[in-house]
Amino acid sequence: MHRNMDSRIRLPFLKERVTSAAKAAEWIQDGMTIGMSGFTRAGDAKVVPLALAERARHEKLKITLMTGASLGSDVDRTLTEAGVLARRIPFQADPVLRAAINRGEVMYVDQHLSETVELLRTRQMAPIDIAIIEAIAITESGAIIPTTSVGNSASFAILADKVIVEINLTQSLELEGLHDIFIPKHRPRREPMPLMTPYDRIGSTAIEIPPEKIVAIVFTEKLDSSSTILPPDTETAAIAAHLVNFFKEEVAQGRLSESLLPMQAGIGTIANAVMAGFIDSPFKRLTMYSEVLQDSTFDLFDAGKLDFASGSSITLSAEKSRQVFNDIGKYKDRLVLRPQEVSNHPEIIRRLGLIAINTALEADIYGNVNSTHVLGTHMMNGIGGSGDFARNAYLSVFATKSIAKGGKISSIVPMVSHVDHTEHDVDIIVTEVGLADLRGLAPRERADIIIDRCVAQPYRQMLQAYVARAKQRGGHTPHILEEALSWHTRYRDTGSMLTSQITPDIGSYEKSVSLSI
Amino acid sequence: MHRNMDSRIRLPFLKERVTSAAKAAEWIQDGMTIGMSGFTRAGDAKVVPLALAERARHEKLKITLMTGASLGSDVDRTLTEAGVLARRIPFQADPVLRAAINRGEVMYVDQHLSETVELLRTRQMAPIDIAIIEAIAITESGAIIPTTSVGNSASFAILADKVIVEINLTQSLELEGLHDIFIPKHRPRREPMPLMTPYDRIGSTAIEIPPEKIVAIVFTEKLDSSSTILPPDTETAAIAAHLVNFFKEEVAQGRLSESLLPMQAGIGTIANAVMAGFIDSPFKRLTMYSEVLQDSTFDLFDAGKLDFASGSSITLSAEKSRQVFNDIGKYKDRLVLRPQEVSNHPEIIRRLGLIAINTALEADIYGNVNSTHVLGTHMMNGIGGSGDFARNAYLSVFATKSIAKGGKISSIVPMVSHVDHTEHDVDIIVTEVGLADLRGLAPRERADIIIDRCVAQPYRQMLQAYVARAKQRGGHTPHILEEALSWHTRYRDTGSMLTSQITPDIGSYEKSVSLSI
Repeated sequence: MHRNMDSRIRLPFLKERVTSAAKAAEWIQDGMTIGMSGFTRAGDAKVVPLALAERARHEKLKITLMTGASLGSDVDRTLTEAGVLARRIPFQADPVLRAAINRGEVMYVDQHLSETVELLRTRQMAPIDIAIIEAIAITESGAIIPTTSVGNSASFAILADKVIVEINLTQSLELEGLHDIFIPKHRPRREPMPLMTPYDRIGSTAIEIPPEKIVAIVFTEKLDSSSTILPPDTETAAIAAHLVNFFKEEVAQGRLSESLLPMQAGIGTIANAVMAGFIDSPFKRLTMYSEVLQDSTFDLFDAGKLDFASGSSITLSAEKSRQVFNDIGKYKDRLVLRPQEVSNHPEIIRRLGLIAINTALEADIYGNVNSTHVLGTHMMNGIGGSGDFARNAYLSVFATKSIAKGGKISSIVPMVSHVDHTEHDVDIIVTEVGLADLRGLAPRERADIIIDRCVAQPYRQMLQAYVARAKQRGGHTPHILEEALSWHTRYRDTGSMLTSQITPDIGSYEKSVSLSI
Repeated sequence: MHRNMDSRIRLPFLKERVTSAAKAAEWIQDGMTIGMSGFTRAGDAKVVPLALAERARHEKLKITLMTGASLGSDVDRTLTEAGVLARRIPFQADPVLRAAINRGEVMYVDQHLSETVELLRTRQMAPIDIAIIEAIAITESGAIIPTTSVGNSASFAILADKVIVEINLTQSLELEGLHDIFIPKHRPRREPMPLMTPYDRIGSTAIEIPPEKIVAIVFTEKLDSSSTILPPDTETAAIAAHLVNFFKEEVAQGRLSESLLPMQAGIGTIANAVMAGFIDSPFKRLTMYSEVLQDSTFDLFDAGKLDFASGSSITLSAEKSRQVFNDIGKYKDRLVLRPQEVSNHPEIIRRLGLIAINTALEADIYGNVNSTHVLGTHMMNGIGGSGDFARNAYLSVFATKSIAKGGKISSIVPMVSHVDHTEHDVDIIVTEVGLADLRGLAPRERADIIIDRCVAQPYRQMLQAYVARAKQRGGHTPHILEEALSWHTRYRDTGSMLTSQITPDIGSYEKSVSLSI
């Protein structure tokens, strides 16, 4: 009997279901669809999937794996290497899995993060056979209390035939009460979601399911994988500064108050740095209504800038994680974790009027954004929640550094090689060079301002030349179709988007950036 | 004094504001932003804008024109020819205006139809100076009762400094009570929209504004322009049949009931024909929650298939218009017209779980859809509401004929030349050849099924060859980037997407289509 049994499993008969990860993994059969907890490396099931990979050494075992979003703990890598993944839904961020996806070995279904459970609930995708959910505890009624993410865990557990729970003893019982589990009714009898501010609690604090569905419980002591974000640098600080200046002007114009509107920020280094930029801003009593809460969320709390943060997960660097989770009581009444269906719901995003800040892999001169595909073909991570937010937000911002690979790639191109966000859903593009406010502009006007504000030399000149020649051919959205993707093919063929006449002059690039800040 | 004065203008002091179209047009000054009623040729202001065009013969006069959607009565043509339009928002469908847009003479801002008034309300676009609204009457309190569309009329009138009303005497006073005007609160104090079925009425029957804002009233007797849709043909009947069969299977699988879910259908011949296809279907007690209600809506009422239809406008052929509006009492209790912000609202679309059926200009093998741009550059009409619906619907269908121009254009191409709807928002693609159900599939699987089900020879073989070669290069979404848009450039250069080795064999095309039905 485990030392924590009584506090961690509060419904007596379930104590008999405690078993090893290997035994629990035996419930999973070839061909099954498995729904696992885990959102941006937080709160993921960590030991049963690895036991499953071990089993696959000895037998044929292929599954469809659905999660909230990306996993940590090398789960996607290990399952890929073991050949277990036939199909992966709706997001990933693992290099080994990514390579398998791009070889066509794993069928990856990249979805808007709010939509996966709608498709499951209406049986428009194969049903979940088994859910594997990380928890801090199981309540007296058999309800599952999640750890550092909610993601799709609640609906997976509700919709699955059987549930395996991984109780993580490194996660404090103090997390109880942090979660707000709300499940919409089936259509056509669905009612409005009664959420009117980021603070509102509209559900229960645990995932309520018939406890007899819990077929196995495994204890673990593995920490969440730490965030992989990099600290702010000169370029991300410049991006943040441009955005802070933009919002200052919006306040000056009376369009926003000094608490702005609830903010969403995508995962990753740039979005985290942008949010950190609000520490030294004049804005007050900010709120977040986002997916993932990163280091900057807690830096903003500590700086007294942020009043409340709603998310679907907490994903922190190792150092910040120790600080926050050792002192979670300090933050708990200003935090809530929701199902990703709620954190990313179009109804709520539009009602609250979010300021959505997401990262572009590349953008084009008309404001279309590629978030996912390198050179138009190779998947990086996935669209994640960016489409949920960009389409329905009060203001949709996309941020990117203007160049990559030491200047050999321009993040602003004539035509993006893959479109995840159309120009209709992109209000602001910001790079370290500057910010383009595209609201109310036609494509030709958008091109001029994006090139002028967001692009450094020599790419600025190259894009100006392209658009001038394209306009001679006419059209609402002028292009030279046979050259529109030539920057990508040139990079593939020569290792640089620059034409042979031009060599990258990073000195002049740096000058144009520093001048613009 | 006009014979209809008392019933049409029920607030006495406003009778003094009756004037001529020319006099009313004098309120409009160079540089103003004008918001006009009109959605899909229905309920548009018809005489003041033409008087404005007349004025422009003698003086410099440029305006920003915002409407609900497209206009009839040659208003867009006449204003374009008079050089009055500096900027046009958010939709149009006029050949003369389109040509001016594509020459870069009119700045056209193509927007999701639900979003325009959000941007105005938050002052993210220039404010409306004057609204011109067609009405059947002005009430005792000075509220404006619209005619055959609501569109953006309510918010335009509320947000404008001054309002001009065109009272259309050809429109029966029986239309009173048809409209349901609901205006969301400003954020951050917005509440849920209390609409839970297509039947629900949540607002008032007229547009309530301070009556002193009405500076001019003009009487007109011009009919709405008739719908330009063509009758169903072999291909559209085949598209409808494929969809009916698909829905039969969904009902058989228990995913939908025999009343399906509320349906949205885009404007135009194909969507109208698809809806007409439901007349001879086994489904019952259907409902519509759509933008525009076309001939097929009333055919479905008359066939006893449709219980209720919610829209933002009624746009009919000349014959159907006479029949419906001469007998509107027969239909009125089964109809409601709402602001396009409500008919197209993400919150409602997601809550009701709409079946959204829209038309593609072209689609690619991965399911991305171009709704707007011919050969990637030249605007046709605009994205309209298709993005509001496709992103948030229960099921998103895009329909197109598989070929155009006698087979010289394939509507399914390797890569669309412009993206309005990404593969994430496209569940079903249907052509006269067949239907591809893309739910839960990865891009490589989507390509195989789209090519196999939706494309006739010889394009099927050409696309199979393309995708096979692209797969050799790898990637989640395989492409040969330097050839991806070559079908479009070949059409531009040779007049056909077919390679010179292949001549179109329409006989074999027709055989493959008829076999598939």
